[in-house]
Amino acid sequence: MQLIDGKAVSEQIKKEIAQEVSLMKAAGKKVPHLAAVLVGHDGGSETYVANKIKACQVCGFESSLLRFEETVSEETLLAAIDKLNKDQAVDGYIVQLPLPKHIDEHKIIEAIDYRKDVDGFHPINVGRSFIGLPAFLSATPAGILELIKRYDIPTAGKHVVVIGRSNIVGKPLAALLMRKDYPGNATVTVVHSYSSDITEQCRKADIIVCALGRPGFLKADMVKEGAVVIDVGTTRLPSDKTKSGFKLFGDVDFEAVAPKCSFITPVPGGVGPMTIVSLMKNTLLAGSNAIYR
Amino acid sequence: MQLIDGKAVSEQIKKEIAQEVSLMKAAGKKVPHLAAVLVGHDGGSETYVANKIKACQVCGFESSLLRFEETVSEETLLAAIDKLNKDQAVDGYIVQLPLPKHIDEHKIIEAIDYRKDVDGFHPINVGRSFIGLPAFLSATPAGILELIKRYDIPTAGKHVVVIGRSNIVGKPLAALLMRKDYPGNATVTVVHSYSSDITEQCRKADIIVCALGRPGFLKADMVKEGAVVIDVGTTRLPSDKTKSGFKLFGDVDFEAVAPKCSFITPVPGGVGPMTIVSLMKNTLLAGSNAIYR
Repeated sequence: MQLIDGKAVSEQIKKEIAQEVSLMKAAGKKVPHLAAVLVGHDGGSETYVANKIKACQVCGFESSLLRFEETVSEETLLAAIDKLNKDQAVDGYIVQLPLPKHIDEHKIIEAIDYRKDVDGFHPINVGRSFIGLPAFLSATPAGILELIKRYDIPTAGKHVVVIGRSNIVGKPLAALLMRKDYPGNATVTVVHSYSSDITEQCRKADIIVCALGRPGFLKADMVKEGAVVIDVGTTRLPSDKTKSGFKLFGDVDFEAVAPKCSFITPVPGGVGPMTIVSLMKNTLLAGSNAIYR
Repeated sequence: MQLIDGKAVSEQIKKEIAQEVSLMKAAGKKVPHLAAVLVGHDGGSETYVANKIKACQVCGFESSLLRFEETVSEETLLAAIDKLNKDQAVDGYIVQLPLPKHIDEHKIIEAIDYRKDVDGFHPINVGRSFIGLPAFLSATPAGILELIKRYDIPTAGKHVVVIGRSNIVGKPLAALLMRKDYPGNATVTVVHSYSSDITEQCRKADIIVCALGRPGFLKADMVKEGAVVIDVGTTRLPSDKTKSGFKLFGDVDFEAVAPKCSFITPVPGGVGPMTIVSLMKNTLLAGSNAIYR
């Protein structure tokens, strides 16, 4: 069993990005600038945004944070987005989700200039990556592809079972894994809450991606010997054993499942750090106009 | 075994559309107008476009055909598209594919105003339908969903195997069949040329959708008793037995497979007529601004 060390890979990639940024600087080019929009004070969102800004520093990017109170109006938020779209200093930006219920998330996402949509959530980026055109890939699926690549895990003709059909992980990852490229060319099955045959599907899978957000869902008897298991779960539960008062739980019963696997990602330190690194990669692409214009 | 009569369903839907159009007329509203752009003289494309225009007449739509020679420049074609985008008389239009090799198909598709993109090929429509937002659905997947609906075929929790991963059938259909709606909520597997386990996957499937374009590919021993089989194949081969000199072949070995099925679509007269009807439905939606604005 080999542990997929997302933390180490993400550190390595951040170094690679920082090198590119210093080359850009040396060539007298503008340094990529990522902005983040944060509404309210949700603990998880605060942590995510803080980590993204920290990663920007490591990569040598400029970054800025726009904060709004929980009570901000949709109109004010749309005006801020319009300003970010026009701001030539900002190469890419994210609006941290979820947003308060009185704000239409889709409306906000569609207001983002797709050329600055480094989260890859705008329909144009979703559609282009679905068709196989250059686009900002959604961060978590892109991070998973990167791990598969860095660990040389074969995917062509393999049976991948993706557990979960979310718009930001399950569905886009499924589409990417069936494209005519590496990582890709896999036989992909997506299972979810309505599926009656999750266990049978998983038992035959060469690669299982767990992205449903239920701690310890994937048990050892659902995994065949030698399978690759990628755990996207990050359920944050209160804990008295950590400094933060919280502990992250994956979707995989790691202790029992790991011994059967050829490769497995831990939680934390697996897919999580890669998600932020994908965002950094997209920011670099945005800053160098590599995808649009 | 029940035959899914796509021809009858499509006639019925065209009648329903024609009724709506006469109501629109009676209310003094503009009648929907579909334009078609046809480049060159490919036999298949000529037939498809002629059938689309004929369907417009049956539905009570206005229609127009813009023809260009095989040698047309990309620039000229883009200028025509710009004109169609601005033409308030035209509610929706299609550019018949394939285009000659010297023209960038993606560039043409992305130049179409997504609000007039009744083929549903523009990345915005692809992305929005992927996410589950209102959009012009790609015609063939939409036609298949409609057949499933009209024949009350259950999909929730069923295992669907889609053979083929094209951008216009396999992949979008897979995404639609896993959404949280009816038809949908299915466990979906996409298999293709790289899949080593097509036969095993098909044998367990409750619903098989064949969309790879290989005549007679799906054999009886690949289908379980009581399965639903949807044949999207339309390979056009020369024949001395038809007036046109051509005969359409599906991907299913119909004679042998049909007796095992609970439902099956024939070729011709199954999915084919539904594809055109989906285009008519999208034109009606465009004409009544039901999706955008």
